[in-house]
Amino acid sequence: APRKAPPIEQTLPCSLEELYKGTTKRMKISREIADASGKTLPVEEILTIDIKPGWKKGTKITFPEKGNEQPNVVPADLVFIVDEKPHSVFTREGNDLVVTQKISLAEALTGYTVRLTTLDGRTLTIPINNVIHPSYEEVVPKEGMPIPKEPSKRGNLRIKFNIKFPTRLTAEQKAGIKKLLAP
Amino acid sequence: APRKAPPIEQTLPCSLEELYKGTTKRMKISREIADASGKTLPVEEILTIDIKPGWKKGTKITFPEKGNEQPNVVPADLVFIVDEKPHSVFTREGNDLVVTQKISLAEALTGYTVRLTTLDGRTLTIPINNVIHPSYEEVVPKEGMPIPKEPSKRGNLRIKFNIKFPTRLTAEQKAGIKKLLAP
Repeated sequence: APRKAPPIEQTLPCSLEELYKGTTKRMKISREIADASGKTLPVEEILTIDIKPGWKKGTKITFPEKGNEQPNVVPADLVFIVDEKPHSVFTREGNDLVVTQKISLAEALTGYTVRLTTLDGRTLTIPINNVIHPSYEEVVPKEGMPIPKEPSKRGNLRIKFNIKFPTRLTAEQKAGIKKLLAP
Repeated sequence: APRKAPPIEQTLPCSLEELYKGTTKRMKISREIADASGKTLPVEEILTIDIKPGWKKGTKITFPEKGNEQPNVVPADLVFIVDEKPHSVFTREGNDLVVTQKISLAEALTGYTVRLTTLDGRTLTIPINNVIHPSYEEVVPKEGMPIPKEPSKRGNLRIKFNIKFPTRLTAEQKAGIKKLLAP
């Protein structure tokens, strides 16, 4: 049997929005094909890749024998490997999406409403009435990434908080806080 | 030349106090020694180990040829390896000592005085007038571990804070805080 050329791997950078909603990517490739006489000539082809909602970094899409054709060798497989571009708001942790909101100490103590635009463009409004402490995490069920093999399920959205303390307080402010927060 | 038996290693657990102040440890060992005729008999010996202030986990102290004696073999070296026992208050990070103080939000905002007993039994009193935020670190120079090779220098003591937020606040408390912390 003729030997087969080793697979050619290529990264396929995808935005988090694309991995959330799914998308179709058309990739133009250049390869050599051989005619009946064995003479090779360059051609360009368009490959269509169907990115499914929820695909993860590292997912491989294989196009069998799409490498260069040459006599007595089975052409290489062409393998695309999904890579996830960094996002300005969300980070992905498995199926969950994580976002960190910067809030003031007053907001942390007196109530804060999170407003977020989801990866598919919807507006989420999440009022939080609990006291928000430094390790507080608000979990919004099913607002994480889709799960390709279980379309009825979804990851969670986890909202963390970076609480900005005042740099300095006046003697009056300190006295007031002492009185208000006295045990 | 006669072959030498491979070294015998033994851990030497030391408290952080012992590594801070230095100490002398007497270790009783049992070994076989050979008389002129080659007959071996068991003996007990006391080895004295002088722990120097600032020694680190992993420091090795070698007693040459303190293993069992046997015909035609050079006795093994006996090697003690310093290990650091966990401490209830301090953790060591290189030459620094790190301590975490649990304080209330009111203390974080209105002022707090750290009181600590050092590893050699002195009382440190460190008033902090800054607002203490969750990643605040108070560095006390030269209150860390001694440095064996540079007796004039010392590591730092780094004080971190775990700020306990109130679990809930009344509407009146919230209104008061809003007024006090208004930008």
